[in-house]
Amino acid sequence: MLTIYHLWLSPPCRLVRLVCEEKGLDYQLKAEKTWERREAFLKMNPAGEVPVLVNGKAVIAGRMAILEYLEEMAPEPSLFPNDMVARAGARRLLEWFLFKFQKEVTTPLLTERVLKKYLKMGGPDAAKIRAGQTNLGHHLSYLEHLAGKRNYLNGADFSIADLAAAAQISTIDYLGEINWPDYPHVREWYAKVKSRRSFRPLLKDYLAGLKPPDHYTALDF
Amino acid sequence: MLTIYHLWLSPPCRLVRLVCEEKGLDYQLKAEKTWERREAFLKMNPAGEVPVLVNGKAVIAGRMAILEYLEEMAPEPSLFPNDMVARAGARRLLEWFLFKFQKEVTTPLLTERVLKKYLKMGGPDAAKIRAGQTNLGHHLSYLEHLAGKRNYLNGADFSIADLAAAAQISTIDYLGEINWPDYPHVREWYAKVKSRRSFRPLLKDYLAGLKPPDHYTALDF
Repeated sequence: MLTIYHLWLSPPCRLVRLVCEEKGLDYQLKAEKTWERREAFLKMNPAGEVPVLVNGKAVIAGRMAILEYLEEMAPEPSLFPNDMVARAGARRLLEWFLFKFQKEVTTPLLTERVLKKYLKMGGPDAAKIRAGQTNLGHHLSYLEHLAGKRNYLNGADFSIADLAAAAQISTIDYLGEINWPDYPHVREWYAKVKSRRSFRPLLKDYLAGLKPPDHYTALDF
Repeated sequence: MLTIYHLWLSPPCRLVRLVCEEKGLDYQLKAEKTWERREAFLKMNPAGEVPVLVNGKAVIAGRMAILEYLEEMAPEPSLFPNDMVARAGARRLLEWFLFKFQKEVTTPLLTERVLKKYLKMGGPDAAKIRAGQTNLGHHLSYLEHLAGKRNYLNGADFSIADLAAAAQISTIDYLGEINWPDYPHVREWYAKVKSRRSFRPLLKDYLAGLKPPDHYTALDF
């Protein structure tokens, strides 16, 4: 039994859950209020961030480290392409969504719209929300370009790149920030990924006081 | 022959060079002025960032993707530990230095002290420099803790984690930002890494108009 220390709307945490679901791994979730900087948790991950994965005595921290570890400990079904160059392409996209999209879009929107409210840190900073929304537009245009020319984001086959992107999109969609009619190829691609069995537990997440839009759980939206 | 698109003081670029040196791979460097957003370069890496690695027809972008690719194409000498949990530990530190240290320390210091001057973007922002220096203190304390209890950062053996940390430290040391007497364990560890043959080409880098401190190239400092 694996343990995932996580936060509900954190895309890197959602990605680790998706990978465990895809690989049929048994896991339990523990919500970690990272802002409390709990000492025992900082020992597990000095960066103070979720996700952290615990497997028996092994504590695995670091977004990329956890995903590579899961692929190594449970190689089937593989989520990384077999071909070395295609694998590098999937890792490029993985890094894009885990770090670049996270920093430019998700962190500002989640911080201003959810975290500040929950922690009573004062009102949202409208300029930061606007910056996050502008960046979201650029990222969705890039996704539209990728989804329009390929079956999946890294080529013909489903891979960890699709899960990494969908983990981000699912959080942003929960916040109601995506105007779907503007991005038909992204919608078609996301409907495919969202329909996978691995996605079901995520779509049941529900944050008290923050209702997602009606289409959030719909597979045909 | 590999081609590395790079910038001289960029630690992720320095790390790719170090890995090629450690593995005895033949490479050439091409300096890429990423701020010019050259169209042909953006096709290679839509993130617009260096490093980018070219191997024949294969274009590899993404910091982690390039390092994993180099390990896969040239497995000997291996820079990732054999044991799965130790490997995850090395990847955690790799991510720490490639992303966290970079964002909290190197990007603000390099932007304010070097890039703005070079691009004539106005005077440095003193508050951002101070923030970078404060973060540097926290990171050096963590490094002092790691280097004090272990032979190398991830344990008994030399690994990619040491190269990733040393690539950052070498850039910060070029800027003269490290007060070495405060961090004796870091100094001892860095002297070991800096003495490796792979480090020699880096220490010869010289940026016009920005002289490093006298101890920068010294192996006994």
